[in-house]
Amino acid sequence: MSPRPITLLTDYGYADEFAGVCRGVIARIAPEARVIDITHGLPRHAVRQGAVVLANALPYTPAGVHVAIVDPGVGTERRPIAARVADDERLLVGPDNGVLSLAIERLGGAEEAVDLTTSPFRLEPVTATFHGREIFSPVAARLASGAELAEAGEPLVADSLTSLDIPRPRVYPDRVVAHVLYVDGFGNIALNLPHDGLSDTFLRLGHKVSVDTGRTRVTVPFARAFADVTAGQGLLYEDASQSLALAVNRDSAAELLGLRTDDEVVLTPA
Amino acid sequence: MSPRPITLLTDYGYADEFAGVCRGVIARIAPEARVIDITHGLPRHAVRQGAVVLANALPYTPAGVHVAIVDPGVGTERRPIAARVADDERLLVGPDNGVLSLAIERLGGAEEAVDLTTSPFRLEPVTATFHGREIFSPVAARLASGAELAEAGEPLVADSLTSLDIPRPRVYPDRVVAHVLYVDGFGNIALNLPHDGLSDTFLRLGHKVSVDTGRTRVTVPFARAFADVTAGQGLLYEDASQSLALAVNRDSAAELLGLRTDDEVVLTPA
Amino acid sequence: MSPRPITLLTDYGYADEFAGVCRGVIARIAPEARVIDITHGLPRHAVRQGAVVLANALPYTPAGVHVAIVDPGVGTERRPIAARVADDERLLVGPDNGVLSLAIERLGGAEEAVDLTTSPFRLEPVTATFHGREIFSPVAARLASGAELAEAGEPLVADSLTSLDIPRPRVYPDRVVAHVLYVDGFGNIALNLPHDGLSDTFLRLGHKVSVDTGRTRVTVPFARAFADVTAGQGLLYEDASQSLALAVNRDSAAELLGLRTDDEVVLTPA
Repeated sequence: MSPRPITLLTDYGYADEFAGVCRGVIARIAPEARVIDITHGLPRHAVRQGAVVLANALPYTPAGVHVAIVDPGVGTERRPIAARVADDERLLVGPDNGVLSLAIERLGGAEEAVDLTTSPFRLEPVTATFHGREIFSPVAARLASGAELAEAGEPLVADSLTSLDIPRPRVYPDRVVAHVLYVDGFGNIALNLPHDGLSDTFLRLGHKVSVDTGRTRVTVPFARAFADVTAGQGLLYEDASQSLALAVNRDSAAELLGLRTDDEVVLTPA
Repeated sequence: MSPRPITLLTDYGYADEFAGVCRGVIARIAPEARVIDITHGLPRHAVRQGAVVLANALPYTPAGVHVAIVDPGVGTERRPIAARVADDERLLVGPDNGVLSLAIERLGGAEEAVDLTTSPFRLEPVTATFHGREIFSPVAARLASGAELAEAGEPLVADSLTSLDIPRPRVYPDRVVAHVLYVDGFGNIALNLPHDGLSDTFLRLGHKVSVDTGRTRVTVPFARAFADVTAGQGLLYEDASQSLALAVNRDSAAELLGLRTDDEVVLTPA
Repeated sequence: MSPRPITLLTDYGYADEFAGVCRGVIARIAPEARVIDITHGLPRHAVRQGAVVLANALPYTPAGVHVAIVDPGVGTERRPIAARVADDERLLVGPDNGVLSLAIERLGGAEEAVDLTTSPFRLEPVTATFHGREIFSPVAARLASGAELAEAGEPLVADSLTSLDIPRPRVYPDRVVAHVLYVDGFGNIALNLPHDGLSDTFLRLGHKVSVDTGRTRVTVPFARAFADVTAGQGLLYEDASQSLALAVNRDSAAELLGLRTDDEVVLTPA
């Protein structure tokens, strides 16, 4: 039986060898497993962004073993975990700090989970700074090669896993209070506004919207595509995850508006 | 029959999951296809640079399906296309904005082309911002797996594809007017001067050349390698695509000279 | 027999197609060989850092053919080489400027070496700027496919290979003079202090250490993990290569302390 594919999502960056060493560890244990890099370029320690990106990306990857490492608490008491979700028996591996939580929820919930702290699959010695190398990668490679989840660590109560506090928008017909979910690498601002909950509001394609950040107020069109506005102009649009987002064509909306994760924006008809 | 390899060239960057999601989509459809990332680090929306880099890179990759996505007009009326070229029956996939045009020309010209707008291979829903995920990747994966080009979309007249306006140099025996084709990630300046058209000029290895940018004038040697000049010194050299380029050893020539794509430089004997 | 895996470590960066072209060249010659990117994000021309990172990373990768390209002298008289080491018959390929030397030493020493300058495996023409494409990648692919090292080039006396001058620390029971080995992508400072040579000193987990850079003096705890100090605070810790390092939680220690490769730091009890 051929091994399951392994996806990697980390904040290790591209300057150093950290992601490459994880690929090396995997290739030693599971030389035939396909490794799919989702990204290693997440902002350092951005657990929330990692969680959102992972949940949005996994439905587009083959079912397999999915590693996510955004881990400001590495070396402390936070648990390294692995979990099996309902959908396609996908397996998720990473720190229990919430980075896996949105994907687990989206993929049907955790049906089984284990604590990897003393996993028999880990590489010794386990350092205090690089669990990607010593725990997450070797565990993922063994799981991809057919090991049972129960062999990978000590059983956990699946609903004891850490979840994330995501701010909730307040939606009224002529006023929407939203929050910055995260800022992507181009400065586009993802809002916590799934488009399908907005059908009864003023947020309609082609209409103009006033965006109040508390410090500044701008008016932008609700447009389909970046090219619908000229370079330097702002727009509100439905992004690839079917949520609303703010952008500036060929510039950074986050920089121009001075917005960061969790900041509040108030949308009203213009 | 094993699937053909797929190469990817985009301006999606490395901070986000966009390139990773494309790899995921491909792996779902063509799990055995080899995916070769040429780069995802092109400057955002640099269609010209993408076209030049693709044309220079493809002769060094295996023949297969070649995706290039630099797509400022995504979501507007520009067509998503796929084309088959004469050389090795390579297939090219991307937006019809010129990014494929130089590679098509270099690889023998388009023998067949299709419009992918309503491709049966696309993933629904097609968003207005991420055709890499919904159109280009699934089409590439199906083509790599053996689908016929004609199945991928509506037939197009092959010579109706968009081409690029590349500035042409003016070459005289003792004076050459060239243009900046693009600036690479190290600040080296690629000029529109293929070396083999310069044999009757003053541009000879070891000679000194005066470079006039309109704002400043510098004298540099025509050298073989960066290490032929000291750190901080400029040079003119034949780059890896056998065209002339300007660089500064261990620094950015583009920044020091204030040059950008399409800027004119006048070369004369020093 | 299936081909050996190939690892790649370069300073080519991610903005351009250079690493991708190497992957393409390899895939043409050895379509079944697994390619593992260790990193392409090393600081430009950082031969020392490349050498340290390669030596630390290779034990975690499968044995195979290991390419390292940090090559400020490309196109000059420095030799392109390949060498076989004692451990697992691993093969190393790269410029003979020291970038391979620490890995060769760590992996049991070179048992055989060849000069690739006129390798029959190289791609013609060999340019003066891109030996990764014309020499190192095709040679690596042929070696991975089973070619003998002796076929790849002219024999060299193995102990004539270039080595690196790494500064040596001076270790006393209550005073340690160390040096900056390199700075990683997060600004963490790797010191030339393997932890296992420090058991008789004051450098003990939980103790406070005074760090004198010549320009400034700070006191930091010797901690296990970043999360043991608050954001913005410094720490001394044992890094993933079991050497001591200086860091600032969620900031760049190198920037804050103004330290660069080879700078001296004096550690004393605080």
